[in-house]
Amino acid sequence: MHPRTSDVLVVGGGIIGLVTAWRAAQRGLRTAVVDPEPGGGAAQVAAGMLAAVTELHYGEETLLGLNLESARRYPDFVAELREAAGGVDVAYRACGTLAVALDADDRAHLRELHALQHRSGLESEWLTGRECRRLEPMLAPGVRGGLRVDGDHQVDPRRLATALLAACERAGVVVHRAWAERLLVVRDRAAGVLLKDGTELAAGQVVLAAGSLSGRLGGVPDEVLPPVRPVKGQVLRLSVPRAYAPFLSRTVRAVVRGSHVYLVPRENGELVVGATSEELGWDTTVTAGGVYELLRDAHELVPGITELPLTETRAGLRPASPDNAPLLGPTALPGLHLATGHYRNGVLLTPVTGDVMATVLTTGQLPEEAQAFAPARFPSPAPSPSLSPVGVS
Amino acid sequence: MHPRTSDVLVVGGGIIGLVTAWRAAQRGLRTAVVDPEPGGGAAQVAAGMLAAVTELHYGEETLLGLNLESARRYPDFVAELREAAGGVDVAYRACGTLAVALDADDRAHLRELHALQHRSGLESEWLTGRECRRLEPMLAPGVRGGLRVDGDHQVDPRRLATALLAACERAGVVVHRAWAERLLVVRDRAAGVLLKDGTELAAGQVVLAAGSLSGRLGGVPDEVLPPVRPVKGQVLRLSVPRAYAPFLSRTVRAVVRGSHVYLVPRENGELVVGATSEELGWDTTVTAGGVYELLRDAHELVPGITELPLTETRAGLRPASPDNAPLLGPTALPGLHLATGHYRNGVLLTPVTGDVMATVLTTGQLPEEAQAFAPARFPSPAPSPSLSPVGVS
Repeated sequence: MHPRTSDVLVVGGGIIGLVTAWRAAQRGLRTAVVDPEPGGGAAQVAAGMLAAVTELHYGEETLLGLNLESARRYPDFVAELREAAGGVDVAYRACGTLAVALDADDRAHLRELHALQHRSGLESEWLTGRECRRLEPMLAPGVRGGLRVDGDHQVDPRRLATALLAACERAGVVVHRAWAERLLVVRDRAAGVLLKDGTELAAGQVVLAAGSLSGRLGGVPDEVLPPVRPVKGQVLRLSVPRAYAPFLSRTVRAVVRGSHVYLVPRENGELVVGATSEELGWDTTVTAGGVYELLRDAHELVPGITELPLTETRAGLRPASPDNAPLLGPTALPGLHLATGHYRNGVLLTPVTGDVMATVLTTGQLPEEAQAFAPARFPSPAPSPSLSPVGVS
Repeated sequence: MHPRTSDVLVVGGGIIGLVTAWRAAQRGLRTAVVDPEPGGGAAQVAAGMLAAVTELHYGEETLLGLNLESARRYPDFVAELREAAGGVDVAYRACGTLAVALDADDRAHLRELHALQHRSGLESEWLTGRECRRLEPMLAPGVRGGLRVDGDHQVDPRRLATALLAACERAGVVVHRAWAERLLVVRDRAAGVLLKDGTELAAGQVVLAAGSLSGRLGGVPDEVLPPVRPVKGQVLRLSVPRAYAPFLSRTVRAVVRGSHVYLVPRENGELVVGATSEELGWDTTVTAGGVYELLRDAHELVPGITELPLTETRAGLRPASPDNAPLLGPTALPGLHLATGHYRNGVLLTPVTGDVMATVLTTGQLPEEAQAFAPARFPSPAPSPSLSPVGVS
């Protein structure tokens, strides 16, 4: 066996790339991952809400099915991953979520979400403001009502990345800590990648799982280049001193004057506050305005946060697709698959993505639950005016 | 010459301790400084406003004289220090300050400050809101008026600390990177300090210049223990991208609903936003509330800060004395001097403090300009109920 040849080569070692590699290796495929910093990526910034129900948006009912399926698989996935990673725990916490309204507009919005949830067969319970505060005494007195969703849990995405990397390495996945420069195409078939240092890595199948960077690998033909773009999110981390614990007992979220804000309390005392949503291209700057708006909205929701230490401010990029749903499975270029475009749901969709991609890679078939997410649902972009290769890196 | 014996031993290597040591060494005294992190301390957090005029407070007219004298010495001090430090520049910027009012209360407050300034013979000019915005176009449209003070400048306190440390080392000051555990008293005279590792450093005279920690050195008799306490300040640093420069051309400050906020724009693109003022003892935690209030008030003053990268959040401790003025010169214990309690004015008072302390150490006399700041102005504390040594460390 040539060490630089594998059955499957995954470009991108974020949680989506790693879960794909881990599941492929479990099925007996010789698998490699290429990433300069495996375990990094958007998961380092994400809050880790598993919010299939409270993140439901109009027009995303198809995605809802995949989200719910992945949420259903989470407990078993977590148990299996812990074992496979040699005991690394991902801090899965079945705490539920409370979505609250702070003014009449918020309440109307939340009432509509509640109705949509019911039409979609989801479980959620309408609570008065008083009932919300009984559940979470730190909530602002002005909270006017809320939705209790006992099925929307959380996980720690940084630990998830660590565990997946450990599981990959224990399953024999070869991890190349390097930049993939361009896709190698041989006789109209994806055949591997060229690294920045000139090394060629050959592979029977290539999975492009590079998050928001997935559209920027050189050498990918125009018509299969994934239509993903970066959507910036700024996130804060506070810490809850022992004297204040438990500060919140479940995820609390709201829409405050049109901005979404959430507080995710971890068992270890971390409290994650997120997130801005900014269309600024490849910018990952933490700005005065982003931090200000998060603190302002979180403070309106839970005034007592003022006393908590602010331990981290950070920005990351969500890989968004045109319909907010992921691109999973084969492309029009034989040998090239996609696992990208997970947008706000990458952490939630990790279990199902791993399963789907392993099936694709071993059988060539996209399983039923992923049919709606085939890359072919997007028309090819108009041909580029230039005939030169499209690669941008 | 025994290396562990000096004429002068300065406890505390912040800017006050270092300027004292530098000036003492220049006068031919064998000088040492003891500090685990020389060049650290409150100057690492301070914004560096040299605000003799805009920081004028009722009841602090005596301090005003010292502040003005130090401000007067600044340009020559900076030039001499640069030379002595082998070219380290402290980014002294004679930019002036604009203090503005955002509502009717602020305007009334600022009008009173203006009247006090005039009675004190200080130069400041009342401007309309429109005139303020002509000077600083980034100011909020709601600014109702302001005071232009062309004499209140700025310096970069971190560079000041770096330059003073370099000047000390070039002047032959011995720097002990260690914790002073207790004062050594021999025959009712300060004789040196004991380090945490058991080493004794002997000295003819000891200067206690440990900022807010000055009251905590072990072995200092009750009646000469300086009455200083820590006052926490949280400070942010933003950066002004080249495309936005010059964002502000001078220091801009205001009182926003009772909180003081200021923005200090440095030539290098740093914009310092400060500061909270919190009586919380030895706490140096950066809190969600502190950062929120600074961003909220700065945003109200200069809305355009939202686009600027937030590069640092930090908290430090100002050493406050009962009358907000420093304690300079000999104590009732022969051989023990104080140079502490500089509170909000440590950076401003650095030049005059160095000169005053050098005179005290060489002649035993407190110069005229420092007479009002002798430690003896505070009555001794009541005797401790216990007869054990006072040392707390």
